[in-house]
Amino acid sequence: MQTSIRIPQTEYETRVKRLLEYLTSENLSGVVLFDNFYILYYTGFAFIPTERPIAFMINSSGECSLFVPYLEIEHARANALVHKVDHYEEYPGHPHPMEVFKPTLLDLGIKGRIGADNDGYPWILGYRGPSLSELAGADVICISGFIEDQMMIKSPAELTLIRESVKWGHLAHVLLQRYTKVGVSETEASQRASFEANIIMLDTIGPIYQAQSPFSDGVGAGYRGQIGRNAAIPHALANNITFQRGDILVSGASAPVWGYNSELERTMVIGKATDKQKQMFDHMVALQDIGIRSLAPGVCCAEVDRQVRAYYEKNDLMQFWKHHVGHAIGMRYHEGPFLDLGDQTKIKAGMVFTVEPGIYLPDLGGFRHSDTVIITEEGQEVITYYPRDLDSLTIPG
Amino acid sequence: MQTSIRIPQTEYETRVKRLLEYLTSENLSGVVLFDNFYILYYTGFAFIPTERPIAFMINSSGECSLFVPYLEIEHARANALVHKVDHYEEYPGHPHPMEVFKPTLLDLGIKGRIGADNDGYPWILGYRGPSLSELAGADVICISGFIEDQMMIKSPAELTLIRESVKWGHLAHVLLQRYTKVGVSETEASQRASFEANIIMLDTIGPIYQAQSPFSDGVGAGYRGQIGRNAAIPHALANNITFQRGDILVSGASAPVWGYNSELERTMVIGKATDKQKQMFDHMVALQDIGIRSLAPGVCCAEVDRQVRAYYEKNDLMQFWKHHVGHAIGMRYHEGPFLDLGDQTKIKAGMVFTVEPGIYLPDLGGFRHSDTVIITEEGQEVITYYPRDLDSLTIPG
Repeated sequence: MQTSIRIPQTEYETRVKRLLEYLTSENLSGVVLFDNFYILYYTGFAFIPTERPIAFMINSSGECSLFVPYLEIEHARANALVHKVDHYEEYPGHPHPMEVFKPTLLDLGIKGRIGADNDGYPWILGYRGPSLSELAGADVICISGFIEDQMMIKSPAELTLIRESVKWGHLAHVLLQRYTKVGVSETEASQRASFEANIIMLDTIGPIYQAQSPFSDGVGAGYRGQIGRNAAIPHALANNITFQRGDILVSGASAPVWGYNSELERTMVIGKATDKQKQMFDHMVALQDIGIRSLAPGVCCAEVDRQVRAYYEKNDLMQFWKHHVGHAIGMRYHEGPFLDLGDQTKIKAGMVFTVEPGIYLPDLGGFRHSDTVIITEEGQEVITYYPRDLDSLTIPG
Repeated sequence: MQTSIRIPQTEYETRVKRLLEYLTSENLSGVVLFDNFYILYYTGFAFIPTERPIAFMINSSGECSLFVPYLEIEHARANALVHKVDHYEEYPGHPHPMEVFKPTLLDLGIKGRIGADNDGYPWILGYRGPSLSELAGADVICISGFIEDQMMIKSPAELTLIRESVKWGHLAHVLLQRYTKVGVSETEASQRASFEANIIMLDTIGPIYQAQSPFSDGVGAGYRGQIGRNAAIPHALANNITFQRGDILVSGASAPVWGYNSELERTMVIGKATDKQKQMFDHMVALQDIGIRSLAPGVCCAEVDRQVRAYYEKNDLMQFWKHHVGHAIGMRYHEGPFLDLGDQTKIKAGMVFTVEPGIYLPDLGGFRHSDTVIITEEGQEVITYYPRDLDSLTIPG
């Protein structure tokens, strides 16, 4: 699809060039990648991983190849920026895909010392097969760390897609808030908001849009069961609760745009907040303010968590703490680095983080906003723009 | 939640007992599992895997333990059938979760020779950490094959859930067919059908329903881009095509019910089918008939693929072949064994397969029905009951 909002071909070439430089510096004969995000990052080829293995290969001359099932040939040829597409007939197949893969590797001169993201295709959805080291009789070096580091710094094109994602997440959340009413079920509110936001998004940018995401085909907003007292369990699974006056709600909205995601979460209340609810809401906003303000190039990720934790401690809130301040976001809805005591990564311009410290009280519920923040040369820019104040987030009830 | 339709506690106990027998027979000091489906299978604890590791452990005395982030403690304690829940503070954390995991393993006496599904928590969503063999200085034996074999044979309780899934997939597909019209977009038809089917499903079985699935929160029906000429690319990603007269459509519908899935796919045509379309449709139904009739206890999976391929060959259709006959289905929407030349598994009562041979013509489109079939002592039972004939699948246009 011709569109200026997707990642340009030159950028894929730059990404692969850096991988090749790394490969050379590490004296690797080549690199084999199985992870669908890594393959999308280097080739532009989006797919949902199944029991049928797919692999990307690059050798020390920079030749790039994709290995796919017969089923995926047209799709791969049409979309993957590689020099060639090799294939096997089927999985488990006769011969097994890995028996076909072995000579393909050797043809590329990939042997001896090989970089990879995993020692063989992972055993998902019924796949069984040999490890890469068994198969190739090779020394397999994990290079995921290098790739993760490369993916951390977003290019202007990537930031444009994340900003586009923010818009549609925003719309879905506006609709979610509108449809959330006493007596309505969370499923009805979330699915209606997501459905309408999708139709509107496709009516608006459909001809230049693709999701390219294994997580979702389009925009979505919902509650994931974080309603009322359940809001105290941050990752509770959806349960179709009916909204009641007094409920504290923690919502979420996002939209994959050409593979990239943003994150927007809000704490809302149905009916006038009680004093205790208001107090916890205000603490949560204060915590998030500290997190956002402390983000800047050169700051250590752990330091952000330390500064936020200092507020929890000073205000006797650690009993309501459940998780770190936030995480990076991009092709995955969570990725490294993490705004966490244990992450010593130095923050750089081009990184994108969620900032989302939470407060969780067993009897009252959970309080968490999440905003998406880009690190700039000067400091930081919050690119989500949904209201954060309690008045705007109070639903009549 | 109290309901007779979920897997009973005694069945989890039986599953764990078999795992313990295997552990003993293989002289393992214990087993460590990271895969979310395996953990759900043995403990009833459903979660979406993230960068925060979760692990299930069982030692040679049969003591079962779950290792979770602090964030998941309540959720785990409320849902997991284990003797205890251990936790770490956060990922990446300080200390790293695996530093906390190590003494937990040793406390259970899991060391030396350990069974596992993966040598360490997989590096997903930014997770980085040591392998299990590095961490425990242990010999890690992959036992996924045993678990996959155990999961292949479904119990009566599992079959009940798969049958329940069929009903709601059916409803979603009825609505999908109803909303598919010339000029409507696939997104509108699929999301409207899925939304309404979900509301109806929850109005009907909401109080006894949970999805327990990382794939989907509820019932869904759609096209995944398999429309018109695109139908020839079986796993094309959704593209929001607008329906036109003459389109050949390949649809899909399913619903996760307490973790279990079914599969229903249909080939539909908008307007009267052309002779060529009708000819290919009839071939496809004939292929599926052969696949279904050949399923019986004692038959080798490969033999089913051979019998179906014989029809392709006899009718000069191999040029339009793209994939094997089908796959098992259960907690995963694809799982082993596979109805494939390369799968020597002997079919047994209690297995559940999809039967879905396809015909794909570059200029005409794709033709594929998929039905869900239970293997019985006597033979097989097709548990999906959506019409398969062209008249019923012709959409006015």
